[in-house]
Amino acid sequence: MRQYIKSIVELNDNPKSRVFAYIVQVLILVSIISFSYETVPDLEPGTRKILRAIEVFCVIVFTLEYLLRIYCSDKKSAFIFSFYGIIDFLAILPFYLALGIDLRSLRALRFLRLFRIFKLMRYNRALAHFSRAINRAKEEILLFLFVTLILIYFSAVGIYYFENAAQPEHFSSIFDSLWWAIITLTTVGYGDVYPITVGGKVFTFFILMIGLGIVAIPTGIISSALTKSVDKKEED
Amino acid sequence: MRQYIKSIVELNDNPKSRVFAYIVQVLILVSIISFSYETVPDLEPGTRKILRAIEVFCVIVFTLEYLLRIYCSDKKSAFIFSFYGIIDFLAILPFYLALGIDLRSLRALRFLRLFRIFKLMRYNRALAHFSRAINRAKEEILLFLFVTLILIYFSAVGIYYFENAAQPEHFSSIFDSLWWAIITLTTVGYGDVYPITVGGKVFTFFILMIGLGIVAIPTGIISSALTKSVDKKEED
Amino acid sequence: MRQYIKSIVELNDNPKSRVFAYIVQVLILVSIISFSYETVPDLEPGTRKILRAIEVFCVIVFTLEYLLRIYCSDKKSAFIFSFYGIIDFLAILPFYLALGIDLRSLRALRFLRLFRIFKLMRYNRALAHFSRAINRAKEEILLFLFVTLILIYFSAVGIYYFENAAQPEHFSSIFDSLWWAIITLTTVGYGDVYPITVGGKVFTFFILMIGLGIVAIPTGIISSALTKSVDKKEED
Amino acid sequence: MRQYIKSIVELNDNPKSRVFAYIVQVLILVSIISFSYETVPDLEPGTRKILRAIEVFCVIVFTLEYLLRIYCSDKKSAFIFSFYGIIDFLAILPFYLALGIDLRSLRALRFLRLFRIFKLMRYNRALAHFSRAINRAKEEILLFLFVTLILIYFSAVGIYYFENAAQPEHFSSIFDSLWWAIITLTTVGYGDVYPITVGGKVFTFFILMIGLGIVAIPTGIISSALTKSVDKKEED
Repeated sequence: MRQYIKSIVELNDNPKSRVFAYIVQVLILVSIISFSYETVPDLEPGTRKILRAIEVFCVIVFTLEYLLRIYCSDKKSAFIFSFYGIIDFLAILPFYLALGIDLRSLRALRFLRLFRIFKLMRYNRALAHFSRAINRAKEEILLFLFVTLILIYFSAVGIYYFENAAQPEHFSSIFDSLWWAIITLTTVGYGDVYPITVGGKVFTFFILMIGLGIVAIPTGIISSALTKSVDKKEED
Repeated sequence: MRQYIKSIVELNDNPKSRVFAYIVQVLILVSIISFSYETVPDLEPGTRKILRAIEVFCVIVFTLEYLLRIYCSDKKSAFIFSFYGIIDFLAILPFYLALGIDLRSLRALRFLRLFRIFKLMRYNRALAHFSRAINRAKEEILLFLFVTLILIYFSAVGIYYFENAAQPEHFSSIFDSLWWAIITLTTVGYGDVYPITVGGKVFTFFILMIGLGIVAIPTGIISSALTKSVDKKEED
Repeated sequence: MRQYIKSIVELNDNPKSRVFAYIVQVLILVSIISFSYETVPDLEPGTRKILRAIEVFCVIVFTLEYLLRIYCSDKKSAFIFSFYGIIDFLAILPFYLALGIDLRSLRALRFLRLFRIFKLMRYNRALAHFSRAINRAKEEILLFLFVTLILIYFSAVGIYYFENAAQPEHFSSIFDSLWWAIITLTTVGYGDVYPITVGGKVFTFFILMIGLGIVAIPTGIISSALTKSVDKKEED
Repeated sequence: MRQYIKSIVELNDNPKSRVFAYIVQVLILVSIISFSYETVPDLEPGTRKILRAIEVFCVIVFTLEYLLRIYCSDKKSAFIFSFYGIIDFLAILPFYLALGIDLRSLRALRFLRLFRIFKLMRYNRALAHFSRAINRAKEEILLFLFVTLILIYFSAVGIYYFENAAQPEHFSSIFDSLWWAIITLTTVGYGDVYPITVGGKVFTFFILMIGLGIVAIPTGIISSALTKSVDKKEED
């Protein structure tokens, strides 16, 4: 009996296990869409009831799945404290906590339901690759993130020096200028703050000519780490 | 006789076939420009008549071309149901459908005329390369598109959490926040929505530092797949 | 005598030729800055006189340089009709034309003075590399520029379909929508036009996810052609 | 005694030297945050006093560190005029200068305190790599920066020609147009200035299709120089 359930719950070539995995993935997506839909303002009471029913249904299935996985695993405590065991637990925890506590203080708790997305990692090779690639390039990313942060800080100090007098409402302190620096150096450029003095514009010119190459480095490291990890997969 | 027409209709070293191909390409472009011009508001009745005449002329030529291609092909049904056979058919279909139906309901139908652009693929090696490269990297693109979508979703949930109270008109729900997330992470940054709270700005800072590398991955895969396909072509 | 002048006018290890090259380059830059300065509105008559004097001085030197180069060259007609010979001629032509014609109609002519920038190519290896690299990758660039243009056109048609009814002033025709398409797909995102309907936003989402990789290709080809050309230089 | 202090002050495997290095790094960060915080407008007098106390404390420690480093070094004058010796001196100089001069004229002097960031270079391998990589690729960067500047200048002249008549307040001279050119070609796109004429939009279209590849080159050179330098590190 336990072997039979195990062959279904754990993803393998068994067609039944594929159906099971498919159902769980669909429910995760349904649960996430329902979570997003709850944030739409002025929902009708009828809609709220449906969303609540979907949530209850999802939690029941996820709880059953969690219990089955514990039941199937050879070493129960090992599963419970494994990465996926904790994720499975956190995915249902907020619901049961909410039953006991007053609903008003639950705003932050509600967001914990999003841990369910990580349940998808079990089925998605890309996500697993991704977290491994990040892990391997961790040191490099941190080192160059540091260089990037220093550049952003220098840009903020520079623009503060040039623009503070002309636009005290937008560049009131170096902290405010940091917002400009990050939005400009990543080339997002919302247009909510931008230099208007000649000095500030010339400074922006130089920062952009030099800075784009530097800000692109952590990005490039992540990309190349992922590409390497994909190439390695293909070799296997 | 059939062999002679075939040598003209199918692109080869025959100079006449080059002239034929050139005429068809020019007519496709004329037809697309005419289609675009029709959307200009408040056209004079005279202009409308000219555009209509161009359209009728193009359709007649494309119909003749279609019939000639059927006539020339060795296995008629094989051509009709081939990729290019269907494209050639769809390129003239809207016109003949429009003759039978009331003109008011034709808005969506009108856009079907754009299938003519795909007729250009027959003559453009880059487009053929492009669709083959996309096809080969399909699985990878889908996997990392999924990672990107999760990142975008997380950004949307985060910014909703920080900005909803301060800007309920711009970040009214997670669906609205998704718009901000995609416009920011692709660095388009229209400036129609942007965070104004300190928490939202700090969150944007971290999302941008980490996220740009991830959003760039599907883009990078397409680019590298195309580059490989170009290099392979050069080796031939 | 002619050999002596030639050793000065043509750039080589001779220190005098280096000084000559340096003077010409400085004068080109002075002449370009002076050209830019003339466009500043409401200049004082005194400033105008100085700018005019600078222009006259530059043209005299460039004319002398041109005559010396003709005098030095072994085959006079070969130099006159060579790339640099024509550039040298075009750099002084607008001034002499302006002496004969009424000054009012000279707006377009004035811009011809910018041909002087190309005179710098004689001294700048990067510029020479650049034009050679572009030349070599010409066919590829054109092929993929075509794919990019089709993508931009499709984006414009799509956004026109979604946004025309909601924003007839910004998306009045497909030509207007093309402006949105190029500004969005290059991620410039001025924020002067952006979709406001749900359909338009979802469409933008998909276009951005797919399109960024495609628009980046001509850019990538230019970059890689240049990098190859730089590497080759280093091997020499 | 001197050997003992030297083993602490200079970073090595000695655990005490690690603690010393850690304290100095924390103080640099504290000093930079305190510097940034001073720029916040309308600080309470109490906060000002605390910030002043932090500054005095940091300077005392940095002065002690400087004196110890001189004391430890085998050739005193060699250290004082070395890169790090000068940086250490500049990091404390503004404070002592400020004691002697009237406080009003110190705005520019205040920014000299930021030299302290460079003190971090002693401890951060990434920063050292970075400056070495930039140094090695210096010539290439300058050559292509020049090509980029010419492209930006041409874009500015072009847009001035198209937009000056329609928007004399935004494109009043070529210098003003340069601001548009840099913000557009780096794809920042604040949206403070953008073309509104058909000619200007078509020109922007072509500039963007061609220009993005060129502006990306100096950026690409910095990135690749850094990547090479990182790979070399890994080989060691």
